[in-house]
Amino acid sequence: MTASAPQRPASPWRLARRAERMNPSVIREILKVTERPGIISLAGGLPSPDSFPIEAMREATALVLRDTPREALQYAASEGFAPLREWVAEQMSQQGMAVDPAQVLITTGSQQGLDLVGKVLLDAGSGVAVEEPTYLGALQAFAPYEPEVITVPCDHDGPLPESLGVAKGARFLYALPNFQNPSGRCMSEDRRAALVAAARDIGLPIVEDNPYGDLWFDTAPPAPLASRWAEGIVYLGSFSKVLAPGLRLGYIVAPPALMPKLLQAKQAADLHTPGFNQRVVYEVIRNGFLREHVPTIRVRYKAQRDAMRAALEAHLPKGCSWSVPTGGMFFWVELPEGIDAVALLAKAVDLGMAYVPGAAFFAANPKLNTLRLSFVTVAPPEIERGVALLAQALRAA
Amino acid sequence: MTASAPQRPASPWRLARRAERMNPSVIREILKVTERPGIISLAGGLPSPDSFPIEAMREATALVLRDTPREALQYAASEGFAPLREWVAEQMSQQGMAVDPAQVLITTGSQQGLDLVGKVLLDAGSGVAVEEPTYLGALQAFAPYEPEVITVPCDHDGPLPESLGVAKGARFLYALPNFQNPSGRCMSEDRRAALVAAARDIGLPIVEDNPYGDLWFDTAPPAPLASRWAEGIVYLGSFSKVLAPGLRLGYIVAPPALMPKLLQAKQAADLHTPGFNQRVVYEVIRNGFLREHVPTIRVRYKAQRDAMRAALEAHLPKGCSWSVPTGGMFFWVELPEGIDAVALLAKAVDLGMAYVPGAAFFAANPKLNTLRLSFVTVAPPEIERGVALLAQALRAA
Repeated sequence: MTASAPQRPASPWRLARRAERMNPSVIREILKVTERPGIISLAGGLPSPDSFPIEAMREATALVLRDTPREALQYAASEGFAPLREWVAEQMSQQGMAVDPAQVLITTGSQQGLDLVGKVLLDAGSGVAVEEPTYLGALQAFAPYEPEVITVPCDHDGPLPESLGVAKGARFLYALPNFQNPSGRCMSEDRRAALVAAARDIGLPIVEDNPYGDLWFDTAPPAPLASRWAEGIVYLGSFSKVLAPGLRLGYIVAPPALMPKLLQAKQAADLHTPGFNQRVVYEVIRNGFLREHVPTIRVRYKAQRDAMRAALEAHLPKGCSWSVPTGGMFFWVELPEGIDAVALLAKAVDLGMAYVPGAAFFAANPKLNTLRLSFVTVAPPEIERGVALLAQALRAA
Repeated sequence: MTASAPQRPASPWRLARRAERMNPSVIREILKVTERPGIISLAGGLPSPDSFPIEAMREATALVLRDTPREALQYAASEGFAPLREWVAEQMSQQGMAVDPAQVLITTGSQQGLDLVGKVLLDAGSGVAVEEPTYLGALQAFAPYEPEVITVPCDHDGPLPESLGVAKGARFLYALPNFQNPSGRCMSEDRRAALVAAARDIGLPIVEDNPYGDLWFDTAPPAPLASRWAEGIVYLGSFSKVLAPGLRLGYIVAPPALMPKLLQAKQAADLHTPGFNQRVVYEVIRNGFLREHVPTIRVRYKAQRDAMRAALEAHLPKGCSWSVPTGGMFFWVELPEGIDAVALLAKAVDLGMAYVPGAAFFAANPKLNTLRLSFVTVAPPEIERGVALLAQALRAA
């Protein structure tokens, strides 16, 4: 540029303040690395593709495109496909919650449910309470709304009801009671009752996220929090773990008072979730398919959980600890004090395996000596080999 | 409740301030009314289902579920399916824009593109400039970010470059140059050049929305605004009008400087657009399908445009005026001064037809004597009958 050239600003764009809080997902960045052939990834929470109901999908897509192609490919209601909403309401009712289909909003994955509750409930500077650790994707969904994140102390059973006072005045508590991502823990019946009672006492509503509840290995988890306080809890569900995530289908079950605003936020966000996907999934599940299909996923994941437990016991050096999850997708491992799992990751990837450092799942004060291992994506031989490589990285550290 | 019952607040929920700005979509509410059998709806911008490529969809879904079912049903990259991103970049290049696939972000419909640019660029109180009138869905997408909406004066050719100063300091101008929703107008070459020059001069970036550009009847519209100022314009595209809206597939083409934040906003919003849908659409279009298919839509819509023009000329009373759109989906009708199209709607629906009152498309100072008619959803005989009913309502007013 010569001295006489007109001066224009380098970029005409000015970012919103919230954009400063939006940073690359550690999980996503790691997933990119682990696309490298030959890496055994115990990082991503990717369901086993062996569990995808491909034949049922083939039949359902063919049926939808034969019988209702014009409706399936047209714009549709923002609330979602009515028969699918009715199906969700019926399922919830079987879990002890009286849910009207009018309370069900179909979302583009349950990640969108997190975005919509954040959009409707969070102001800049308002409080949002989370578990310790908590789901990274929820932190990312809430961050653009610039809340103050409050971490509720937790034990192996979830948030401590007696500590819930730290969250008084927050807009809601975000909780994942079943086989939590990342810790794998499942809240007991007593803890659920005590937590809901404590939340009601201080007027703290709850956003209950339940992507993993159906993936139990021996006994079903206790009833949802939402069944205990209908007007104070928003419940998020998903088809990603029981059918397939690539369809991006989830749902919100909300108290009637919140539905109009959630619906308007949904309209503004993407008009509606693809009607084609909704009709295909409804066609797959309408006649009880999940009653046969989900148990096959449980059997598969239980065997993989067992393989990972055995591998951890066989390979991990002294000073490492973990609890054995009774469902879901994850082991949460504590390394000896002083070992930084973020620093260790590069070494592990060099050796040929990947995990997610636990630090990613803390809103504040990360425990650096923690990591998350998924046992659902790869088969037992790779689980065994991946854990052995992790142990090798640890010994070298 | 007895006097001694414990007092609990009626609702524990407290809404975000932005929720006050989120109100039911007039269009959506009208669509509900028009689901009543027997109503001729010229209201919604629903593409003709006769234009949906159902057979191509059947073949593509079968192929995807045969060849890559595990990939199509799995979690996928937030950026979108790489071959589809490359296809979009190639299409843009054919319109005179050098676009790298890394600048392309696949969205869940182009409505999501509006939400993401709002999320990344708008703070509470910051300015956003819009045309007069403008697309209602954009106003709804931006509203949750609490901007100050600035209306740029327009004529039949779009925003007036000499009036752009009113928008100085705004975060961006939202413009829809091709067959605008709702006005149907298409910006001339000269206006595009002058508008972009004026915007550059005051450092005002542009968000260019182009859902209708392919739906021209006689000659293609001038090159996109984005081809004239690469670093200052975000371009939004959609497959809804050239394939089918029920798939919810759109895309953002953004200057490299903005991509990281848009991508992070996308991750937080719904992780990724359904990979199944992306692969199916790519399979449909990869071998030039749209080169054969889109002309059939043009022929269909041109005939329907002609039917509506003839009906308007035949039936509408003196004092009504309209321009004849040269593409897209809409006629914009001005009624005689003093007639309120919102009030008239109830009468029209009683008679058996529906339209969208123009007031819905103004950020401020609505012109009450305007309305939008879509000519794409129903066939010529219903177009004729719907316009006749509108005339009947007008005569009764």
